[in-house]
Amino acid sequence: MAESWSFLDTFEPNFTPLVVIELAKGTKEETIEWFTKRIVDKKANGGAQLLVKPLVTENGDENTYLVGASHLRLLLGAETVGLVKECNDNSMRTFTYSSRKTFKDFADDNQNFLTMAECQYIIKHELENLRAKDEKMIPGYPQAKLYPGKSIVRRLLTSGILVQIFPLHDREELKKLRHSWYGRVKVGYQPLDEIRCYFGETIALYFGFLEYFTFALIPMAVIGIPYYVFAWEDYDKYVMFATFNLLWSTVILEVWKRICAIMTYRWGTLLMKRQFEEPRPGFHGVLGINPITGREEPVYSSIKRQIRIYLVSLPFVCLCLYFSLYVMMIYFDLEQWALDYHEENESNFSSLMLFVPSIIYAVVIEIMNRIYRYAAEFLTSWENHRLESSYQNHLILKVLVFNFLNCFASLFYIAFVLFDMKLLRQSLATLLITSQILNQFAESLLPYWLQKRHKKRMKKRICSLKTDTDLSLVEQVNLEKEMGTYFGTFDDYLELFLQFGYVSLFSCVYPLAAVFAVLNNITEIYSDALKMCRVYKRPFAEPTANIGVWQLAFETMSVISVVTNCILIGMSPQVNALFPDSKMDLILTVALVEHLLLAVKFIMAFVIPDKPRDIQIKLAKLEFESLEALKQQQMKLAAESLKE
Amino acid sequence: MAESWSFLDTFEPNFTPLVVIELAKGTKEETIEWFTKRIVDKKANGGAQLLVKPLVTENGDENTYLVGASHLRLLLGAETVGLVKECNDNSMRTFTYSSRKTFKDFADDNQNFLTMAECQYIIKHELENLRAKDEKMIPGYPQAKLYPGKSIVRRLLTSGILVQIFPLHDREELKKLRHSWYGRVKVGYQPLDEIRCYFGETIALYFGFLEYFTFALIPMAVIGIPYYVFAWEDYDKYVMFATFNLLWSTVILEVWKRICAIMTYRWGTLLMKRQFEEPRPGFHGVLGINPITGREEPVYSSIKRQIRIYLVSLPFVCLCLYFSLYVMMIYFDLEQWALDYHEENESNFSSLMLFVPSIIYAVVIEIMNRIYRYAAEFLTSWENHRLESSYQNHLILKVLVFNFLNCFASLFYIAFVLFDMKLLRQSLATLLITSQILNQFAESLLPYWLQKRHKKRMKKRICSLKTDTDLSLVEQVNLEKEMGTYFGTFDDYLELFLQFGYVSLFSCVYPLAAVFAVLNNITEIYSDALKMCRVYKRPFAEPTANIGVWQLAFETMSVISVVTNCILIGMSPQVNALFPDSKMDLILTVALVEHLLLAVKFIMAFVIPDKPRDIQIKLAKLEFESLEALKQQQMKLAAESLKE
Repeated sequence: MAESWSFLDTFEPNFTPLVVIELAKGTKEETIEWFTKRIVDKKANGGAQLLVKPLVTENGDENTYLVGASHLRLLLGAETVGLVKECNDNSMRTFTYSSRKTFKDFADDNQNFLTMAECQYIIKHELENLRAKDEKMIPGYPQAKLYPGKSIVRRLLTSGILVQIFPLHDREELKKLRHSWYGRVKVGYQPLDEIRCYFGETIALYFGFLEYFTFALIPMAVIGIPYYVFAWEDYDKYVMFATFNLLWSTVILEVWKRICAIMTYRWGTLLMKRQFEEPRPGFHGVLGINPITGREEPVYSSIKRQIRIYLVSLPFVCLCLYFSLYVMMIYFDLEQWALDYHEENESNFSSLMLFVPSIIYAVVIEIMNRIYRYAAEFLTSWENHRLESSYQNHLILKVLVFNFLNCFASLFYIAFVLFDMKLLRQSLATLLITSQILNQFAESLLPYWLQKRHKKRMKKRICSLKTDTDLSLVEQVNLEKEMGTYFGTFDDYLELFLQFGYVSLFSCVYPLAAVFAVLNNITEIYSDALKMCRVYKRPFAEPTANIGVWQLAFETMSVISVVTNCILIGMSPQVNALFPDSKMDLILTVALVEHLLLAVKFIMAFVIPDKPRDIQIKLAKLEFESLEALKQQQMKLAAESLKE
Repeated sequence: MAESWSFLDTFEPNFTPLVVIELAKGTKEETIEWFTKRIVDKKANGGAQLLVKPLVTENGDENTYLVGASHLRLLLGAETVGLVKECNDNSMRTFTYSSRKTFKDFADDNQNFLTMAECQYIIKHELENLRAKDEKMIPGYPQAKLYPGKSIVRRLLTSGILVQIFPLHDREELKKLRHSWYGRVKVGYQPLDEIRCYFGETIALYFGFLEYFTFALIPMAVIGIPYYVFAWEDYDKYVMFATFNLLWSTVILEVWKRICAIMTYRWGTLLMKRQFEEPRPGFHGVLGINPITGREEPVYSSIKRQIRIYLVSLPFVCLCLYFSLYVMMIYFDLEQWALDYHEENESNFSSLMLFVPSIIYAVVIEIMNRIYRYAAEFLTSWENHRLESSYQNHLILKVLVFNFLNCFASLFYIAFVLFDMKLLRQSLATLLITSQILNQFAESLLPYWLQKRHKKRMKKRICSLKTDTDLSLVEQVNLEKEMGTYFGTFDDYLELFLQFGYVSLFSCVYPLAAVFAVLNNITEIYSDALKMCRVYKRPFAEPTANIGVWQLAFETMSVISVVTNCILIGMSPQVNALFPDSKMDLILTVALVEHLLLAVKFIMAFVIPDKPRDIQIKLAKLEFESLEALKQQQMKLAAESLKE
């Protein structure tokens, strides 16, 4: 076994620790020996051929291991995961070891050719692809069954022997990143390329979207301000604002696809081939033959899953929706009660009381959203989806439907049943602002404060004299081990999605919503950045080419908002005054305008190309080259065959 | 040069003539010599390595050539075009010469491994990819410029030296196909696989769609008949019929995608890789560097094209649309005149006269559609699109918009401006039936009759005694040379598209439309089959995986029909009677129902998978295998590199 580091060792020059593996306390010696042997074993013997060293903590426990790899190993791993890098001729190409000299900044002694995030991603990929050969179980744990081809790390995780795997922070790089990201007060773009180098594409894309979305909201906010300041209530101005909003929201979503393509092309992920998806860690079933791979692995009947989805999950979701509507009705009772109280007493206190029901309701909505979120996760995991992507899609669908109803049902009720525009405006403002404040607090500031307190305590315990920067490796690992885990961008996108709903669904009634959204997003960028850099463990980089199903979710919201805005305008007294004789003409006109707007939206979405012309040309060029290479190869073969 | 066949030669055993090349009369000797040399020349020398023989007609003219290829050459060509064939283990794989033994029915002496249509497609592909090397022009024709990489055949075609290239019929096969297709009176499916073997995938897919569409219309027709017979006019029944129709039309379009995937998987085209698209024959421009290929070839500024599209084509299309509306107004004047005449005279003749304006209008519509078609083709070709696909898309868009307005504007006017349901029903019936009769006549019967007359004359001239089957090769070539050319499935799909419009847009007013559509389609299958087998030259097979932009066109039509049907139901007196007090409630209800139906439509389209599960598994399996092969290769490489 590899030699170990003691408490204050400096590390060997050719071993850079990249990833930390934490095993459960009291893991059996034979298991550890077997596992580390498999990690360092040669590729040809079915190992991962990585470097591993134990980290001895002050207690003498040996349950934490550091994983690294030689430079050559990482380059070969980059080829395996299909990384795309920039070449000397500025084109993007899939990296192969044999063509390494053609890549920009490549030199055999340049350790920075691959970013640290990429190295960590490669190591994660290699560890996850460490597969059982003829082991029937994990040595020392007969209940943890293995079968040929089963990912060892996943089995270790599900059987609780492996507590966690996480990448190490690079304190130097992180400091630089923090400085250029949110360290100085400046107006400008985020350092997206640096964020991508440090945290990977998925997270960089989220921050890119957040920034883009904030910029895209500014025109709406700017146009919205005079409506509030001058209390404009003309018919023309309302219609103009709403029409602008609706077309604008289509344009921004289409343009985002183009900007996203530009970014992910630069990052190489637009060109990365999709890897074959392995079953997700929680998936279980009886051993059978997978019809796709032909391998023996757990299979789970699709019919059973359908039954779970349609007979359990669907009724449960419906029940939750009903419950949410029930809570809404209670809110309206409270609202009525507050109004009565105000009318009876007419004091400053009573007029303040008018806002209380809305605030309580906003808090309750947030709580319900969070509880439902756990239930949805449990149910979706119980549905036993084979693939992570399918799990994610079912989870997102469940959560989106509930959150949409939970957040907006009361507003729909006020607008289209009570017809009370004043209350709508007030509720919208309260809901929006309360949820923003709660989110910022719950998401970043609270964890940050907890983390800071914990860190202080830890530091005191370890060594009370040192400052933040010169922590030893052992201290750093111990600190990061205890940090919270960042569970992906789901919640962050969801928050933006709901915000987009508040801004666009009733935009013509409350133009100021965009202003609040912009203000919130500016602080959101800072608090999310803080969260990524200081609160959570460093997450593994995850290559991605787009924001996936969220694009569809935002587009659906923008279609719904066409309908709601048209109805709101149709209901306004100014528009009603234009059709004094016939309500029918009014409604027909509104319906016609709505259909026209929807048609224009769809045509615009169809006509605006998803990728800018230069990216299209670059992609076509790559495709042409690969076809050409294939043709050359076939021609050569054909010429040889015909010669015979 | 190859030896020639005289008038009544039988052919050599190892040369099967597959494709006919007809050069212009009086083509210079040096050109012919150069061209045939390039065709037979070795691949290594840049030739096509095919076999070519001149056909000497009775006049002694030598301007027709027969092209064939050796069996080995065809197999190598099959690899070049990327044909997908069935393997011994029933999976579909891309054919390669080196893995030929693993394919089903392969034997070195089995000449039928490739169908004749496939062989002809391969020869066409090889001829089109015969490219200029260092020739600056076509020998003998200094005005026909060449540059390295330019397709020789395309230049010969555009400069008029090459009159036509077409594949030969196989009289034995054709007879068999005719018999099983329409030779016997039977109720049943068409022999789609045989059609595909003989005519290729594009045409087989059209007939598959026609058949599927006819079957899909039967439920609508069956439900529609009692409405007509018993003159049902209840509210419930109307709404039920319309709702069924709307959901049904969504289902059939989604299910078609699945059936199409099953068929094209079986045919191998679902798996065929897209080839790099070369410029279309008519494309011209100044020599420049193509940014994608890096080759010197004609380029045409995209801005110039945009100018032509938006400043010439778009205004022209709008003008045509205006003209079509103008003609429509004349029709309504005529209609009024006929009505007045009928009221004055009240005779059998005058009541017959009532139908005359509709019939005249239907004929005028057909004529306008055809004239506009030519104009659209001219304009789109003048727009100078680089790719055939882009040309086709612009042409289809132009033609669809005009035909839609031209055919349906009068019906929209009657329904939503005149509110005259009786006239709507009458107009719809007249338009539908007249256009069906005209189409069947103009498309198949007229050309068939002309062709028959011409053939008789030809036969008399050549040799008055022989029967149809034992024509010599020379006679066969001469006969087929004079047959009309089939210009693709565009007109056939367009006809179905308009029929779908007649059936679905106003389905709740005239349920009988589906019955007429079914009857028409049954005869359409026969007349189209007749057209393919007896009227036109055999077309080259064209591999395709789906019906392309037509799927989108049909889906758009089905969305529009939701809107029209909801309005029609809302306007019916039965529904109006349900809301005696308030027109407003009526309109709101209709709008609500319409939005719900649209939402259900989109959700259904989203939920129904485009490919059946077993096809998905087969595709995933293939993808997995290719990824696995790549990984194995990389692993081997990595193991070697790490050993060093």
